[in-house]
Amino acid sequence: MSDQEKTRITVEIHKKKYTIVGSETPKHVQTVARLVDEKMHEIEKSNVYLDTTRLAVLTALNTMNDYIKLKEDYETLLSLLDEEREQEKND
Amino acid sequence: MSDQEKTRITVEIHKKKYTIVGSETPKHVQTVARLVDEKMHEIEKSNVYLDTTRLAVLTALNTMNDYIKLKEDYETLLSLLDEEREQEKND
Repeated sequence: MSDQEKTRITVEIHKKKYTIVGSETPKHVQTVARLVDEKMHEIEKSNVYLDTTRLAVLTALNTMNDYIKLKEDYETLLSLLDEEREQEKND
Repeated sequence: MSDQEKTRITVEIHKKKYTIVGSETPKHVQTVARLVDEKMHEIEKSNVYLDTTRLAVLTALNTMNDYIKLKEDYETLLSLLDEEREQEKND
């Protein structure tokens, strides 16, 4: 991708501004930023004494946990699809 | 889940210790923590002047981005499976 095709967008997360440069659409970057911001606020509500770094790391941990669980579901679904196709071939 | 069934595990991410209390196995928590730690180091390598808070927020953004993309793939797979089952019913 050429530099011209890259998007540059500024988002606000937990009262700080971040400029994201990449190939994603501004809408996608805004959605990702909003979800991270929401999750940080949610974690902050039950951990009011956390500093921002710890809050952000816990947000990353929480999101990574969701990612790994979804990955497992994805792989289960993929095996299911394979099995069904195999079954259909044999019918 | 009772308190007795909860696990309490301390992990180290980017030179800070975090105690995670929850229903996950210690192995799962360690895997999640290792992946977040690796991602932070990876982002740090290409953004050496970032403070730790910004680094942690970018790690959360990056992980959320992966999550959303996987979610899209998961939903595509789910529709495909539905379509194939519908097709098979009609055959």
